[in-house]
Amino acid sequence: MKTELEQVLPGEIEARSFEIITEELEQSGRKIEERYAPIIKRVIHTTADFDYADQLVFSPNVLELAMEALREGACIVTDTQMAKAGINKKALRKLGIEIYNFMADEDVAEAAKRNGTTRAVASMDKAAALNCPIIFAVGNAPTALIRIYELVQEGKLQPELVIGTPVGFVNVVQSKEMILELPVPYIVARGRKGGSNVAAAIVNALLYLVCGR
Amino acid sequence: MKTELEQVLPGEIEARSFEIITEELEQSGRKIEERYAPIIKRVIHTTADFDYADQLVFSPNVLELAMEALREGACIVTDTQMAKAGINKKALRKLGIEIYNFMADEDVAEAAKRNGTTRAVASMDKAAALNCPIIFAVGNAPTALIRIYELVQEGKLQPELVIGTPVGFVNVVQSKEMILELPVPYIVARGRKGGSNVAAAIVNALLYLVCGR
Repeated sequence: MKTELEQVLPGEIEARSFEIITEELEQSGRKIEERYAPIIKRVIHTTADFDYADQLVFSPNVLELAMEALREGACIVTDTQMAKAGINKKALRKLGIEIYNFMADEDVAEAAKRNGTTRAVASMDKAAALNCPIIFAVGNAPTALIRIYELVQEGKLQPELVIGTPVGFVNVVQSKEMILELPVPYIVARGRKGGSNVAAAIVNALLYLVCGR
Repeated sequence: MKTELEQVLPGEIEARSFEIITEELEQSGRKIEERYAPIIKRVIHTTADFDYADQLVFSPNVLELAMEALREGACIVTDTQMAKAGINKKALRKLGIEIYNFMADEDVAEAAKRNGTTRAVASMDKAAALNCPIIFAVGNAPTALIRIYELVQEGKLQPELVIGTPVGFVNVVQSKEMILELPVPYIVARGRKGGSNVAAAIVNALLYLVCGR
């Protein structure tokens, strides 16, 4: 084996990764606010992409509000099965938090077809009818973010938090800028980059702030 | 609403995204081999990160070999639930392909504890005992790739394809370079970047090459 491997115990890989991220953030001269470091560093850990140090934006007091919502029985709604799969189930169980994804539901597919829209839009409509405070984790579909914007503007939805990290090329940048106009707590990855993995990483970082890693 | 949205029908968003990716790849002057374009562009579609045009490496004839394996009943093994969740189930059903992820299995947790290793390693050992040709989609754990390397070197495993796209900071770069030394078909994202989403995107691109989008 020509390759030199770093000797790190399985339980220490994550901590070592965060050390490296912290060192390289300092060396790069990028400034991040210390209170947001657990979120920003976990997103970098998930992507190996230091651009997120500049791209993640936070509404005022969002961490306190999000942590309170998680402690007080908010549920989580994602726009992909991938984001749902990437969220730490042990932490969810510890806090008794329900997580929903409606993208594969038949009624969602039917509503999307009927209305000539995306399943992501129909699944946000379905979420708006839930009987619990909601944290949205939207890592894929700009149409989902746009629908959240409309529902909030129409007074039909008051989310506890909108995590907006869709990725891509069509209306992605715009949909994220729209969320920044809303009077709701948000964590958004500006620009084209993001993904279900980024949305899940942000949820996990918040869960660990509440119940430990 | 201050933001100007592009008017694109739901069914046309993906095609429009690929047009944009194609245009910007050309403008950037990056050269990609045409035969690999469906893989590279789908990874860029999933990440909005054009670096992958340079970072993805392909073993000789890998597309032909992978397509043949998918047609002839190979199964897929992932190292995360996220990668499994991100792979197109309709395409899997069409081709009759089984997909496995062993990370949450009790015997895997026990084996990892007993051997002082990661669950990713134990789940690769479990995969090696499967009674089908295997395509590995490893988007997270460098220890999984390193175990695949060892099993191949020991003559205990002969995968049809290794998709190696772990992301991160500890042994990630090294584990991917190790796969490049193996006499097996591979698609690898060199460097630190990657992820479960990237592994799933590569599997999906291959599935669509076989059975259409």
